[in-house]
Formats: sequence, structure tokens, C-alpha cells
Amino acid sequence: MSGTAGQNRRSDIVAAAMALFSEKGYHSTSMRDIADRLGLQAGSLYVHIRSKEDVLFEIVDEAADRFAAALEQARAEAAARRGGPEAALRLAVRNHLQVVADHLDTATVFFHEWKFLDPDRRARILAKRDAYEAAFRDLVAGGIEAGAFRPVDPRLAALAVLSLCNWFYQWYSPAGRLSAGEVADRFVDLLLDGLRRT
Amino acid sequence: MSGTAGQNRRSDIVAAAMALFSEKGYHSTSMRDIADRLGLQAGSLYVHIRSKEDVLFEIVDEAADRFAAALEQARAEAAARRGGPEAALRLAVRNHLQVVADHLDTATVFFHEWKFLDPDRRARILAKRDAYEAAFRDLVAGGIEAGAFRPVDPRLAALAVLSLCNWFYQWYSPAGRLSAGEVADRFVDLLLDGLRRT
Repeated sequence: MSGTAGQNRRSDIVAAAMALFSEKGYHSTSMRDIADRLGLQAGSLYVHIRSKEDVLFEIVDEAADRFAAALEQARAEAAARRGGPEAALRLAVRNHLQVVADHLDTATVFFHEWKFLDPDRRARILAKRDAYEAAFRDLVAGGIEAGAFRPVDPRLAALAVLSLCNWFYQWYSPAGRLSAGEVADRFVDLLLDGLRRT
Repeated sequence: MSGTAGQNRRSDIVAAAMALFSEKGYHSTSMRDIADRLGLQAGSLYVHIRSKEDVLFEIVDEAADRFAAALEQARAEAAARRGGPEAALRLAVRNHLQVVADHLDTATVFFHEWKFLDPDRRARILAKRDAYEAAFRDLVAGGIEAGAFRPVDPRLAALAVLSLCNWFYQWYSPAGRLSAGEVADRFVDLLLDGLRRT
């Protein structure tokens, strides 16, 4: 087997595992289920992966990195445009929702199954989640400091933004009337302007 | 066995099932796991419940009814106080977060496991979820009509409110610095006033 074919087979295994973890959860997916979906013998999976938990960690860790990269890109783009805190918030929400829309299965596994990792790996994912949350908190705090945002509690405001971002996987449908970008823009408008008629 | 003892045993079974479904998911919880947690023989569970799916439905259906009752109570209270759309929104969010805080396990099962119900029961839960979402949409639409809220898209605004409400189970801790009611008030202030400094 060539290295590339081995890598492809590995990607197939991870993709099949992700679909199954999303459909029925990590615990109730067996190595045999993953092999069955690919038309392979369960034993042959171990050529490519060490354990079911390794696959879960790979999926969850990659998802955490993808959100972090999307946020980094939003911050870089906002800085390049000199768009200020509002632009940074808008791009951050847009990029987050786009990641969820592009990887709905991953989002489900990321949010539901990460807690089943062993304590060490769970701590590593938690650190990435905390860093992500902190970045949103800094974004709000920076906006307050710059005079663009009202003096709200940055932690609660960041949790509000992340609630909008994270709950999206529960209701978004690619067949719906709004794209991820359109939802992001409306959510950010609402967050910026508020509901109250003044 | 008296009817009351039977009812208590049934409640114990549902409570044990709920904790297990929340910890490791519906699919990977067996009737034997539930019996083990209660120090019973698996076969004896069937005196009280017909199937594992019956228990899941009971948990999820009761959770849906609890959210609906909390919302109804919020609307009645807002009406009694003549508080208008802002008060109704604030009470609705407060009551929702309080239900989540009081029943964290239920919230996890409700949000993660309901999709594993058979199609007929899933449709019944979906109808309740849709009705709940529609009530929030009506609340926003009513506020726009009354001139209290800006003319936003009521569906997206309702989804924003419900995102804040529903994501709460993921991060709330009874040991945290804010109570559910305090979080609700800050979230609603943010939603009403917006982030932007005007």
C-alpha cells in the first residue's frame, strides 16, 4: 500500500466514524460499525488507527483548530480593513457559522461527544475551548475600551455571542432560506443594535 | 406492592435512566445499566416500564411540557403586571434558564437524545419544540407591533433568544458567580440595548 492510499483509507475511516458518532453517538458506535460502513473487516482498521478514542480525539481536536483558525482569519481581516471592533465581531461570527455550516456532522460530535475523551485529552480540548471563549471576551473588551461598545460584562457578552454561534448547528439547514453568512449578519445586527426601539 | 410504592419505583427508574442517558447517551445505556444503578434485576424493570424508549420519551416529553409551562407562566405574569413585551421577554428567558438550571441532566437528554425517538414520537416532540419557538416569535412580533421593539426579523430574533436560552446548559454551573436569574437579566439587557455605544 502506498502512503497516499494509506492516508486516504485513514481519512475514509475518520469520515465514517464522524458520521456514525454524529448519528448515534460515540459510545454506541463500535469499530465493527465503522468497518461495516466501509465494507472492511474490523481488524483491518487497526492498520490505520489505534483506537476508537483516537479517532474521536482527532475529530474533536481538528474541529477546535478549525474554529480557532477561522477566528484568527477574522481578526486578521478586520485588522487589514481597519474595520474596528464591529467588523471583527461580524467576521468572527460569520466565520464561525460558516465552519458549522460546512461541517455539520463535526459540530454535533464536537459539542456532544468531546466529554467522552479521557481526562488528559478532555483537558486539552477544554483549554482550546477556553482560549476560544477568551478571544471573544477580548474582542468585546477591546470594543468597550475603544468606545465602540457599551460597558457590558465582557464574559456574559462573549457567552451570548458564542451561544448564537454554537446553537446554530441545532437548527441550520442548507435548504433553509438564509445562508450562514446572512444569518451571521442578522445576528450581529441584532447584537449591536438591540431589540428595543429607542 | 402498593400503587404509591410502584409509582416511587417508577420515578426512581426514570431518574436513574435520565442520569445515565445524560452521562453516556441513550444508545449506550442498557436496561441492565439502569437496573444496576438501582441494585435491581434488569427483568424487574419491566414491571414498571415497557421499554427503554418509553423512558426516553417520558423524559423528553416532560421536559418539553416543563418549558411550555414556564413560558405560559411568564406570559401570564407579564400580562398581570401589564409589563409589556420587554417584561414578557425577560420573564420568558428567566423561566427558561431556571428550568435548565433546575434540571441540567434533563436538558442534556432533551437536546442530545430526542432525535433517537421513533419517528412518530419524534414528530410529537418536534411539534412541541416548534410551538415553543413560535411563541417566542409571537412575543417578538407582538413587541414590534406594539412599537416596543425595532422591526427586526421575528424568526431570527426568536432563534437568537432561544440560542442564549438553550446553550446555557453547556456552560452553566450551580457553583458559578451568577444565578440563572442574573444571567437571564444580563442576557435580556444585552438583547434589548445592544452592544453598540450610541
